[in-house]
Amino acid sequence: MVDVQNRPDERGIPINKVGVKQLKYPIVVLDRAHEKQQTVAEVSLSVSLPHHFKGTHMSRFVEVLNEHHDEMTMWTLPTILHKLKERLDAESAHVEFTFPYFIEKRAPVSKAIGLMDYQTTFIGETYSDRDIFILKVNVPVTSLCPCSKEISDYGAHNQRGEVTIEVQCKENEMIWIEEVVEIAESSASAPVYALLKRPDERFVTMQAYDNPAFVEDIVRNVALQLKADERVVWFRVHAENFESIHNHNAFAMVEWRREN
Amino acid sequence: MVDVQNRPDERGIPINKVGVKQLKYPIVVLDRAHEKQQTVAEVSLSVSLPHHFKGTHMSRFVEVLNEHHDEMTMWTLPTILHKLKERLDAESAHVEFTFPYFIEKRAPVSKAIGLMDYQTTFIGETYSDRDIFILKVNVPVTSLCPCSKEISDYGAHNQRGEVTIEVQCKENEMIWIEEVVEIAESSASAPVYALLKRPDERFVTMQAYDNPAFVEDIVRNVALQLKADERVVWFRVHAENFESIHNHNAFAMVEWRREN
Amino acid sequence: MVDVQNRPDERGIPINKVGVKQLKYPIVVLDRAHEKQQTVAEVSLSVSLPHHFKGTHMSRFVEVLNEHHDEMTMWTLPTILHKLKERLDAESAHVEFTFPYFIEKRAPVSKAIGLMDYQTTFIGETYSDRDIFILKVNVPVTSLCPCSKEISDYGAHNQRGEVTIEVQCKENEMIWIEEVVEIAESSASAPVYALLKRPDERFVTMQAYDNPAFVEDIVRNVALQLKADERVVWFRVHAENFESIHNHNAFAMVEWRREN
Amino acid sequence: MVDVQNRPDERGIPINKVGVKQLKYPIVVLDRAHEKQQTVAEVSLSVSLPHHFKGTHMSRFVEVLNEHHDEMTMWTLPTILHKLKERLDAESAHVEFTFPYFIEKRAPVSKAIGLMDYQTTFIGETYSDRDIFILKVNVPVTSLCPCSKEISDYGAHNQRGEVTIEVQCKENEMIWIEEVVEIAESSASAPVYALLKRPDERFVTMQAYDNPAFVEDIVRNVALQLKADERVVWFRVHAENFESIHNHNAFAMVEWRREN
Repeated sequence: MVDVQNRPDERGIPINKVGVKQLKYPIVVLDRAHEKQQTVAEVSLSVSLPHHFKGTHMSRFVEVLNEHHDEMTMWTLPTILHKLKERLDAESAHVEFTFPYFIEKRAPVSKAIGLMDYQTTFIGETYSDRDIFILKVNVPVTSLCPCSKEISDYGAHNQRGEVTIEVQCKENEMIWIEEVVEIAESSASAPVYALLKRPDERFVTMQAYDNPAFVEDIVRNVALQLKADERVVWFRVHAENFESIHNHNAFAMVEWRREN
Repeated sequence: MVDVQNRPDERGIPINKVGVKQLKYPIVVLDRAHEKQQTVAEVSLSVSLPHHFKGTHMSRFVEVLNEHHDEMTMWTLPTILHKLKERLDAESAHVEFTFPYFIEKRAPVSKAIGLMDYQTTFIGETYSDRDIFILKVNVPVTSLCPCSKEISDYGAHNQRGEVTIEVQCKENEMIWIEEVVEIAESSASAPVYALLKRPDERFVTMQAYDNPAFVEDIVRNVALQLKADERVVWFRVHAENFESIHNHNAFAMVEWRREN
Repeated sequence: MVDVQNRPDERGIPINKVGVKQLKYPIVVLDRAHEKQQTVAEVSLSVSLPHHFKGTHMSRFVEVLNEHHDEMTMWTLPTILHKLKERLDAESAHVEFTFPYFIEKRAPVSKAIGLMDYQTTFIGETYSDRDIFILKVNVPVTSLCPCSKEISDYGAHNQRGEVTIEVQCKENEMIWIEEVVEIAESSASAPVYALLKRPDERFVTMQAYDNPAFVEDIVRNVALQLKADERVVWFRVHAENFESIHNHNAFAMVEWRREN
Repeated sequence: MVDVQNRPDERGIPINKVGVKQLKYPIVVLDRAHEKQQTVAEVSLSVSLPHHFKGTHMSRFVEVLNEHHDEMTMWTLPTILHKLKERLDAESAHVEFTFPYFIEKRAPVSKAIGLMDYQTTFIGETYSDRDIFILKVNVPVTSLCPCSKEISDYGAHNQRGEVTIEVQCKENEMIWIEEVVEIAESSASAPVYALLKRPDERFVTMQAYDNPAFVEDIVRNVALQLKADERVVWFRVHAENFESIHNHNAFAMVEWRREN
């Protein structure tokens, strides 16, 4: 059977990325508390394509995925990346796995247990000279407006917000999803929970009122913690508030790279 | 050229709805303050198909739309519905136009003007014996939790919420989008705005604190107003809070039909 | 601590549904081939609320969910529904679990195995006199246009489509997700796969060309199969084509209930 | 009234971007055929914030937008950007306007007119030393698989795809949305239309069959045209196919900058 993809190409244009996306797949990830966690990822896999080939072989992406979904961690991602590079005869490869990650969380007073989900992405890249691994975690939080609190006789508008942290560590260092969640939650006005009884609701209401924070404050609080962590070489943090007094969102973003 | 759609069908199965959806189209709608408003709709158009025809003629839906987008109101919708029924030789027709509708809104203290958008849907149906028109408006609001306020020494969690009102009037009666927005906003803890200066922010912060409302309260407050409105023969109201203390939403729904 | 929700309400308006939605949760479902399958659901849980109570107790929904996520099937759903009704002192309860369900599928020629995901929803309702269980499965398929094939000298436009089947069985009868998938796939022009090698691609290309089907044909083919299945008492089938020649979709829908 | 945002900040962390997003707003854009076109945009506006200020003044973003929505073009964007920079006392500003843009398009044989929508984004940035304007247009197309055509006795799988072109021109040069659309459509297997009669459907079916193209081919065809256009200094082109034989998408991406 002819192999159209393998034919030469005359247009002289190398392709940065070619591959598959929006592929759903069950995966197993590391879990700090329970060792392993089964979840479902949306997957994107791609490679570079030199200018002289007409096309890539898309089915090979899925074959490589089939061989490796049983453990998807920052330790096994390089294996997948190198196999993609080799199997598709490419110079670079790029993968993204986005999945809900669940953490058991105790309510602050009643200690009732609820399961919180955090949208997480593993981003892996390999080039001729290096591998890159980025952990991205989306953490819902409560934010309470410092301005509203200060100028009002009582009350203060607050809302759900989302803190998205992307972080890259030094070679052979890692950071747990659970650590990133803690950094985000401690940088906002209060954490959010899946299950709160009334004494808990009272607690988080006053906790948020005691810790007002703009989106600007949230990204700076996260940035301070990540800069102080010697494992971290690069991060980008984005905070977004679903403003309770507006129909649009407020956001702030800081990006930083450690100088050698 | 053969007309495959026109062929007879032997399976004996009438089709409730067949048509097109997710079609974007610019439309003009009535505006209480400015007479007319140009906006962009996502459109769905369908008809019933008797069991003995193989298929419908999809291009005719778009042709009818081309002839009528210059005024899309509850007064012109029946014309479109009847033309669809006739042109596609059908017993019933169904259309939906979903679009952002903008209202100029003054901030409560500074009187600064901002443009608020309200996701609106016109739903029209025609059968052999009657036409139906339903107006659906999605109104963002602030809700402040009565429980959180009462059990806490200070503060109260609040959040953006969405009130979705679907309403059907008596024949030859209409209700303005602006009226539906006012009903929703007056049923929650406070309205939301596109533009608030600091004195306005102080005002709405305290207004929300003074008017705590559960999702249950919001749907009941809306229901009371709509039941008291003699034009209204049916409504469904749905309130949803993007809880600031949880990563999930709270919601409530009431459906009601006037008895003769 | 005061219980605001428990207070009497004077507005005289009963609430059809009040509860939580957009809650992510890991669940275990039955799997025809492997007995059990772990996946992640988006969950909605609600109850009715009589007119004389001010509010419901939202945290109890999550508590009930915590107790039952380890097996979520049409056999255990009634238990959850009855517990919700009891724990929240309600007359009716309603739950929805939407999750990706994976099936190993062999390519038609190479027999290579790929994992296909099917968006599935379990819908359960309980009233004073009866329980209802509806299985909803969303099946991606290929559809090839009969008109395009017939009027063109060569080729025929085709596209990915989605067949959504909702089905309710007689009491004590069930239908597997896998069966619903087979009904949908056999009603379209060809199934879709996660992994196809070149001989497979050749096979499905010609299979689709040999089996042209409008959205009208797809819903009728599904309807014929479901009507002939004695277990089925009600169904609704919706087919939607992401038309390759248009920027909008074509769709058709049939709803049917078995007469006694 | 105190100005909390204006207070000094001790954390020493400058913020790359702070502002508002997901704000809906009616705008007027240039239209090659009709001079002007009214549409509705989703807007994001942000500025940088020096390390020594606690916060930015979010309401000013909306005030600037209020003053300028009546003409939103690559010629007026710099005015908005400079005003944001000035009014918010910032070193850089960034805006994005995403909106459906409509073009009247004649069917290839019948010449019937349909309105096609193209999701378009204006991206503007200003720094101390330069302004940047990027036009991004999302163009739906038909793609027909060259491999499927070649290995099959008849037929070929095809599908709707999306070509997303981002392009930056030399200073004082511009490219029309309409030109970008033409580049994308001529690079795929066939254009898509809002309205096609049967002779048109026959035409585009055979046109697609005569012009098979992988996602790799589409991005290369676009790249060739943009590189040959002297106005263009940078582009990124992304092609994505909603594969009709898979439940995932195939994609390719090329990024390029003109060397001086």
